[in-house]
Parts: sequence; C-alpha cells; structure tokens
Amino acid sequence: MSDRVFLHQTHLTIGDFAGAILRLKKDLLTPGLHLYPELFLTGYPLQDLVLKKPFADSYERHLSELNSWLKSQKNLDAIALVGGLRYSRTAHGVPDKIENVIYEISSQGIRWLYTKRLLPNYDIFDEQKYFKAGSETCLYSYQDKTFGLLICEDMWPSTFHQMDPCLDLKTKVTTESLKLDGIINLSASPFDLQKSEKRLKRASEISQQFGVPFIYVNRVGGEDEILFDGSSFIVHGEKSLLQLSSFKEESESFQLMNLEISTPQYVDPKYEQTWESLFQPRLDTQTSPAKLHHLSTIDCEKLLQALIFGIKEYSRKNGFKKYLVALSGGMDSALVLTLLKLAFRENPEQIEAIYMPSQFSSSLSTKLSEELCQNLNIKLHYFPIKFLHANIKNTFHQTFMEPFAGLTDENVQSRLRGMLLYTRSNQTGAMVLNTSNKSELAVGYSTQYGDSVGALSPLGDLYKSEVYALAAYINHRFNQPIPAEILSRGPSAELRENQLDQDSLPPYERLDAILEGILSYRLGKKELVELGFDENEIAKVLQLYTRSEYKRAQFCPIIKVQSKSFGFGYRIPLSKISTFHFE
Amino acid sequence: MSDRVFLHQTHLTIGDFAGAILRLKKDLLTPGLHLYPELFLTGYPLQDLVLKKPFADSYERHLSELNSWLKSQKNLDAIALVGGLRYSRTAHGVPDKIENVIYEISSQGIRWLYTKRLLPNYDIFDEQKYFKAGSETCLYSYQDKTFGLLICEDMWPSTFHQMDPCLDLKTKVTTESLKLDGIINLSASPFDLQKSEKRLKRASEISQQFGVPFIYVNRVGGEDEILFDGSSFIVHGEKSLLQLSSFKEESESFQLMNLEISTPQYVDPKYEQTWESLFQPRLDTQTSPAKLHHLSTIDCEKLLQALIFGIKEYSRKNGFKKYLVALSGGMDSALVLTLLKLAFRENPEQIEAIYMPSQFSSSLSTKLSEELCQNLNIKLHYFPIKFLHANIKNTFHQTFMEPFAGLTDENVQSRLRGMLLYTRSNQTGAMVLNTSNKSELAVGYSTQYGDSVGALSPLGDLYKSEVYALAAYINHRFNQPIPAEILSRGPSAELRENQLDQDSLPPYERLDAILEGILSYRLGKKELVELGFDENEIAKVLQLYTRSEYKRAQFCPIIKVQSKSFGFGYRIPLSKISTFHFE
Repeated sequence: MSDRVFLHQTHLTIGDFAGAILRLKKDLLTPGLHLYPELFLTGYPLQDLVLKKPFADSYERHLSELNSWLKSQKNLDAIALVGGLRYSRTAHGVPDKIENVIYEISSQGIRWLYTKRLLPNYDIFDEQKYFKAGSETCLYSYQDKTFGLLICEDMWPSTFHQMDPCLDLKTKVTTESLKLDGIINLSASPFDLQKSEKRLKRASEISQQFGVPFIYVNRVGGEDEILFDGSSFIVHGEKSLLQLSSFKEESESFQLMNLEISTPQYVDPKYEQTWESLFQPRLDTQTSPAKLHHLSTIDCEKLLQALIFGIKEYSRKNGFKKYLVALSGGMDSALVLTLLKLAFRENPEQIEAIYMPSQFSSSLSTKLSEELCQNLNIKLHYFPIKFLHANIKNTFHQTFMEPFAGLTDENVQSRLRGMLLYTRSNQTGAMVLNTSNKSELAVGYSTQYGDSVGALSPLGDLYKSEVYALAAYINHRFNQPIPAEILSRGPSAELRENQLDQDSLPPYERLDAILEGILSYRLGKKELVELGFDENEIAKVLQLYTRSEYKRAQFCPIIKVQSKSFGFGYRIPLSKISTFHFE
Repeated sequence: MSDRVFLHQTHLTIGDFAGAILRLKKDLLTPGLHLYPELFLTGYPLQDLVLKKPFADSYERHLSELNSWLKSQKNLDAIALVGGLRYSRTAHGVPDKIENVIYEISSQGIRWLYTKRLLPNYDIFDEQKYFKAGSETCLYSYQDKTFGLLICEDMWPSTFHQMDPCLDLKTKVTTESLKLDGIINLSASPFDLQKSEKRLKRASEISQQFGVPFIYVNRVGGEDEILFDGSSFIVHGEKSLLQLSSFKEESESFQLMNLEISTPQYVDPKYEQTWESLFQPRLDTQTSPAKLHHLSTIDCEKLLQALIFGIKEYSRKNGFKKYLVALSGGMDSALVLTLLKLAFRENPEQIEAIYMPSQFSSSLSTKLSEELCQNLNIKLHYFPIKFLHANIKNTFHQTFMEPFAGLTDENVQSRLRGMLLYTRSNQTGAMVLNTSNKSELAVGYSTQYGDSVGALSPLGDLYKSEVYALAAYINHRFNQPIPAEILSRGPSAELRENQLDQDSLPPYERLDAILEGILSYRLGKKELVELGFDENEIAKVLQLYTRSEYKRAQFCPIIKVQSKSFGFGYRIPLSKISTFHFE
C-alpha cells in the first residue's frame, strides 16, 4: 500500500450514484488512501429524497454492484473512505432509520466504519428529521497510522447537542493510551462569508488539543440556494500543511510519513456553536446609530466567486444554456448582468438583456443600460411598455369603475415587465435571473409576479449597501464594466414621476443595519433604540418587514452567502398577530 | 372548588398573547377546572418566531403580568391547565432551550407542570428544531381526582421516538399503586381527512389500557396551510362521553363525579405511528390498475367544512375583505368560486369573478361562467384578452426574430391573465384565490406567474378526480350551483385550438392513482407496474413530476387536507439528477 493520502473535494450532482461510483473506480487505480466528502455517494442536502423508497432502492442497487466489483478486484492497491447513507428498512422495504456514515471501500468490499453523531438541526439544517445519530467513536488504522474519524458537525461542540465527539475521542485515546496520528473530518459544510476562517480556526484548536494534524475534506457544489465551497485543508496547530481551492473540484495528496505529532495542549474551545455565535448581527455598534459591517476586499472577492459559482451551478444542473436579465438602468440589474457576464465570459452571446421602459423611465436609465451592455458586449433588446401599459389602463377604465392609479398603476408596469420577460424566456429557453436584493426582500419593496420573478436570485442575500460595495469592487477589478453613474445615482423604481426609494424608505445605510438587527433574531425595538436608531424609523421598517412575508414565501431560491438568510432556513408563519408589536 | 371540568377548544391568532390572557381571565370567573389546548398562550406552529428574542420578551412580559394579576385574585375559584412555552435564556437573553409545556394557572400564580416528551419532527413537523423534549411523567390532582397529563404526540407510540409516555405513565401508576381517574391530552393536532377517526381510536385504546376516560382538547385555527379542527372529546373505552364540533371555537363541560373507572385491559396498540402508516398511499389495489380511493359522502362534507374554514382563516388573519377568482369555464375555478360563496354567504358582494377569454376560449366557457355566477349571485366581469394578446404578439414580432408560437403563445395568455387579475386585485384590495389542483401541481400543468398565481390554494391538496367528487357533492347538497356541463365537459386549458388535458396527460383516474403512489414516497416505477399501470405512462408522469419542482417551489400556501401534501411538509431539492431515473 502506498504512503499517499488523497483529499478529493468532489463535485457531483445530487442523486448521481453512478457518477460517484465511476469516480471512485477511477481514483482507486492510484495506490493510497483516498478521502471523499460527507455523503459523497448521494449528494447533500437530500431533504425528502432520502425517504423515497425508489431512491433508496436505486442507491442500494448501485452500492451492491460496487461491492461485487470490489471483491473481483484482486490487485486493488487503494482504499477509500467515503461519506454515504446507511439504510434500515421496514418489513415492506420502506426506509426506516437512516444513518449518515463513513464507509471503507476496499478490495474487501464496502464496510461501515462510523455514523455521524452530531446532526445539525437549526436554520437550513434538518438532519434530525432524516437521520439517526450514531453513538460511537471510531478510530481507523491505515498502515501504521491511526486516525479519529468525524463527519462535519462532529467537530463543533455546541449548546445544540448533548455530546461532544471530539471530547469522547480524546477520552478514548487518553484512557486507552492509544497512539493517534491525525483526525479526519469528511464534510458537507455550506459556505458563508465567515465560514472558511471559522473552520480553520476550530480545526487548528482541535489539532492543538490532540497534538496531531486535522484533515478536512469538504464537498463542492451549488444546491439551489446552498453552496459548498470545498476549501479542504490539512492543518497542524496553526500551521497549514495543505490548502485546496474554493468552489472548484480538486484533488491533492500528501505523504503519510510527513504527518508529525506534537505535544497535546490544553486549549479552551473558543469556537463552540451557540445560537448567539451563529446569528450574531453583523453590526458595528461603536457608532450611533450602529452600522452594518463593511465588506472587505477579501469579502468582495469571496462573494464574487460564490455568486458566479452559484449561478453556474443552478444553470448547469437545471439544463439552461441561455440567460436573460431585465435591466432597469439601476444598480441591482446592472450587477446581476455583470455577474452573468463574468460567469459565462466565453459565451456572452448566451446572455441577453432586455430594457422595458415605461413613461416614467428616465432617458438616463436608457443611456446607462445601453452603456452597460456595450461595456459587457451583451445584446440589449429595447422593448418599451408605454403602449401596452396605456392599452391596459384604457381597457380597465372601460371595464371597472375604480380609479387606475397609485399602486395599481405602479404594479401593473412591473407585472407587465415580468410577463414580457417570461414570454421572451419561453421563446429562447433562457433562464431568468432575478434582480432583488436583501433589503428589498426584507421590506417588500418589489411587486409580486413583477420584478420579483426569476428562477434564481443572486443578490437576495446582499443588502443594498453590499450590492453597491460589490459593484464598486468589480469595477475596480475589471476595468469599470458598470457605468459610474449607475453607482452614483439615487435608487428608484421609476414606477411614477420622480420616484426615489428614499421617499418611502430610510436611507439604505440605516435600513440595512436595522434589518440586520431584526433578521439576526436578536434585536427588537428596544435594542434597536439603544443602538441609536430612531423609534419611528424602526417602527416603519418593522411594519414593512412584517407585512411582506407573503412575498418572500413565493420567492425563488436565493444564493446564500451570509449566516442568516432568507430562503429555506427562514421560516415565519404568514398568518399571525402583526409581529411589529413585539419586535 | 367546583366539580366541573371545561374543555375549551380555543381559536386564537398566533402571537396573540393578550387575547389568550383576556380569555383566561374571563373563563376563570367560572368555578371549576379549565382545560386549554397545546400552546394555547402562543399559538402553533410558530416556526422561527419562537426563536426571536423580542417574541420571547413580549411573551414573558405578558406571563409575568398574568402572574401578578393571579396572585392579587383572592377569590379565584377556578384553575386552568394551559399549553404554553417555557424559555431558558443565555446570558445575553437569547432564547436557548425552549420547552412546550403545560402550566397550572391558579390564584397561586403560574406553575410549570409538564414538558412535552415526544416532539414530532417528520413531514410538516419540525419540533425538534425548536423544542427540548421533557423526560418526566406528570400526574395532576384536582379535588379527589388524579389525571395523567400528555401533550399531543405523547399519545402516539411510534417508531420515530425512543420512548412511550403512555407506557411510562402505566408503569408509574402500576409500580406506585396509584389511583388514576383520567388522562388529559392538550393538543394542537393538524387536520386531515382521516385524522379525527385515528385520534378517537387511539384515545379509546389508551382509555381501555388504563380503565379511565381520555380527555382530549385540541385547538381550532387555520395557520396558512395547516388547519386545526378542534373536534375535542372525552371517550371511555369505546363510549363517547363528550364530542365537540369541528372547525369551531367551543367550550363544553362535564361533572367530575360522572367520570367512572373501569378495569384496565390489555390492548395491543394498533395505532402506532410509522412512516408506513402515516404515508400509506390511498389506493385501492384490488383493481388493476389500482385506483385512488373514492371520497365518501362523509369525506366530502369534512372537506367542504375544512376548505371553507381554511379560506376564512387566511382571509381574516391577513386582513382581506374582498375576494377575486378568475373563471375559465372549467371545473377548478368553478369550485373555488362556489367555495368562496359558501364561505362568505352573507356578503356575496365581497366576491367578484373575472372571465378573461382569449381567441381560444369556447363560447361554452363563456356561457358556463355566466351561468355559474348567476346561480351564485356573484358579479362577473368580462375582460377579453384577445386584443392585448395580439398586441403583445405584434410587438414581439417587431422586436425579436424567434417565432411566437407553441408554449410561448400559450403561456403568454395565462400570464396576461395573471397580471390582469392582480391589477384588478390592486384596485379593490381583493384576495386572489388560486385555482390549481393537486394533479396539475404534481405534473406542472400550469403556467408559472400565470394561472399558478394566488394568495392561497384551496384545491392544491385535491387530485382532479377529487375536485369533481367534491363539486358533485356540493351540487347534490346545495341545489346545483355548478352548471352540470362544467362537470361533464372534458377539461381543457383552452390555450390553443381544440386543446384537451387528455392530449398531454393520461386520463385523470390513472394519473391521480400514479401520483398518489409517487407522492406517498413508497412507490417507484417497479411497484407501479406491479399495480397494473402502463410503463410508458408511468415514465411520462414521473418525467413531468420531476421537471416541475421549480413551479411548486414558488407556489402559494395550499390548504392541507390529506396526510401527504405539497407545501411546507414537502421538501425536494430542485437541482438534482432527474429523479425519474430512480422513481
């Protein structure tokens, strides 16, 4: 057996059992120990798929074929540790207890080693809904080395769980005087802006406690709203031994003989997961009123990578080859189009923009939309809605006696655009990118079935001020693709004469900070006042936020880049006492 | 103290702490023991609301005020047992461990008695995400009687949980030779067509095992998609001592002296919850191919009550006073309008229908829409889309070179209607009722942002054949409000010349049965073939079902009436290997 250990941060589609097995068979031709992420064999998160009998049947059929193949391979000089599912069935074959496990794959066949012990069940995680937790520690020996095995959450001591697998591992090693050479963690850990740093710090902490290297293998993939960034690594104490890329399938290896052992040190765990640590509002409370933390250059670069990856993933996995964005002349749509261009640089002809001015659209919006598309080399279609709008208005006047004014007249323009956008999408098969941002979503500053339409939302986890920051970064890095005036003009929906966002909303700097306070679950009216915000402004934001729940409920998947996001991990009833009473 | 026990199946909005306390104070004026449902003080399901610090703060402030008030009431001759939340907080006041409990409310103040032990976490339930389970049995004494306390799921021994609170209660009573007089279960148990019968049977079983009456108090309310039907009862063995109404706030009392005790009997628990029992496909497998079970007259009556209640609840809690339905001349929209009329019988002027024919709408559709509105005495607006449709088509021809045909031309009619419907809704503030059914939703036979729009879906949990059955029942019961021809004509989307559903879909009888097999999580291609379905037809349905996930993801809340429904309890990733490969 070879002395090499391989970290494979694989990138497979959910349910692609055949793809996973093909990959394994290929890798096993290379001698050594091969490590794969959590649930490598099935993908993650599977949600209800995991409960489907046909899903389980197909999975086990593939596993059984793999098992036979393995046993026929006499000369296999490699072993793999892979994440997979372990099913129990009822008498009728219905999936019963399901475990999230590590299998050893070798010429002996498939052997169960370990079951995940800490099943995250907060926010976007529902693992206790689907999986049964394991109760045993596992030490795995390869050649003369012994590794402690963990799966993802197992590395996080937490107030959410009653046990600490790291502590149990430590106890076992100490009481049985075992020699440990490393800890292996197979993960499927979702991306957010702070995540990779947190993982590294915690791994380094564990590494110090045990005095051995920590080997971390994370999957790569975009699953609707959740991104897995890979970013696998080996760390020993504070020393990085290996670091893989983010958002990219990659395999790296190292030699076992280079794994050193150091003296274990007592380290007080600083990275315990608590409700408070997970959803700490990202606010600078030194100023009054408090401010949203600014995005650093590193944050912006990460964001850029994440959003491009998320767009490409959804597009590829759902079979899109063309892309469509409605431009307004404003910041959000300009940034979405720019991200699309960066995602599909090689084929800008796959992207098209459509600009649908109404009587309220300014000539500046037209000019800026044209400039943007020129800069990006993207085809722009000009489709004025003035006449259709007037047409509808007239027909309404003939049919209904109520006035056609105010919100009615504003929303119809937005919905007309949504309708035309999807009609164009029907003609070409293009994927429609949504252009809403997190601030807009939070206060319902959009029209349902109008500008809120789309298959995927790239900006729905960025506050408006973060949209500007990211746009400025992109302009800085890529020779100003976005016309400067788009960044400097005041945001407007242009649905009535001289409309400006700031007429109906607080300035975005304050709005975004208030929203971050509300969405973190922690800050109510009282706390926000203490942070220096105006009571009336808070009340207004809370009211808008509470009243727009129904819009968020029918929204498309949002690419998640923050620890607290709208989407799958955000679950608020629509029918309730207006929550602004107790926010 | 009085010898009377009151069952209050209350009907309060989520978060209405003040309303709950007002109700309590009023009821406590009447001497006796007052019983209230699970989470009476807060409402249920709360989802993430329960985690919000301001929510917890407001709740505890109300509780503390109630506590002071209680202690000031010297002459209180009543006691209440109520469901509520019990919060622990971190040092920063963030909700930490949260328990779903029973409190005793008396002149002594508020006293914790019991914490719910079995936290359901399957399908629509996420209780392990939010609550910490209790570990102790509770016996509660009032006057000379002793009651075992349970909360909802505690009465269901199950393969989902590691313990059985009823068994523990039995063990305690037996080993400590205690005298038990009854079992009290405070519930928030969601409605489905089979549920009330299941509850009664299981309660009767427990009653026999203990030889004491089983007292069951369930909440009333419609929470977006989930309905709580009340239907509280007291049962002793197979004898019903008290039965409250369904979908109606109600209080009933009985005298403690009438509670008799019988000899406990060994009864093998027949009503254990398993994955298989919960999601058994509702198929008659005696015929080949299998058929969906027919709805009985009783089922239809329950459905009618449930849907009317669900519509009224969503409307009231979200502040609607007007209602709007787009009629097509077909079955689904006719049934929705009829349900609306039955829901708001006193004020039919609050309801309006709009009929938006295109060039493909038949004159029969016009005639039937008019007849229906005449029968129901509902105002019908006639809003032809022929010219707008032609207008858009022309503008597209001028702007884009791709043909405007096929799906493009079909969907645009549907989206134009969606847009006009919501424009009308903006004029009057009317709630738009969606008209999709479960078969349509399952195969994606609808246009996103077109006929799929709406605030609430009354028919989204009824297969097409069930829609017909319910319509026939309503016609039988209410003097034929729905024109017979609507029931007898072949279903059509009327988006192109001579289009019939059956041109693109299997006959609904078979389609619905195949879908029930798929959605139950249990039946794949192989099993469906064994049940007598045609392989090609199955493949076609699976393909349509898999490809339409993205439409369901942006759909409105569906009133849940079956054990397995689309909506909150249905969670399938969009990005995945096409599941029809393994279905």
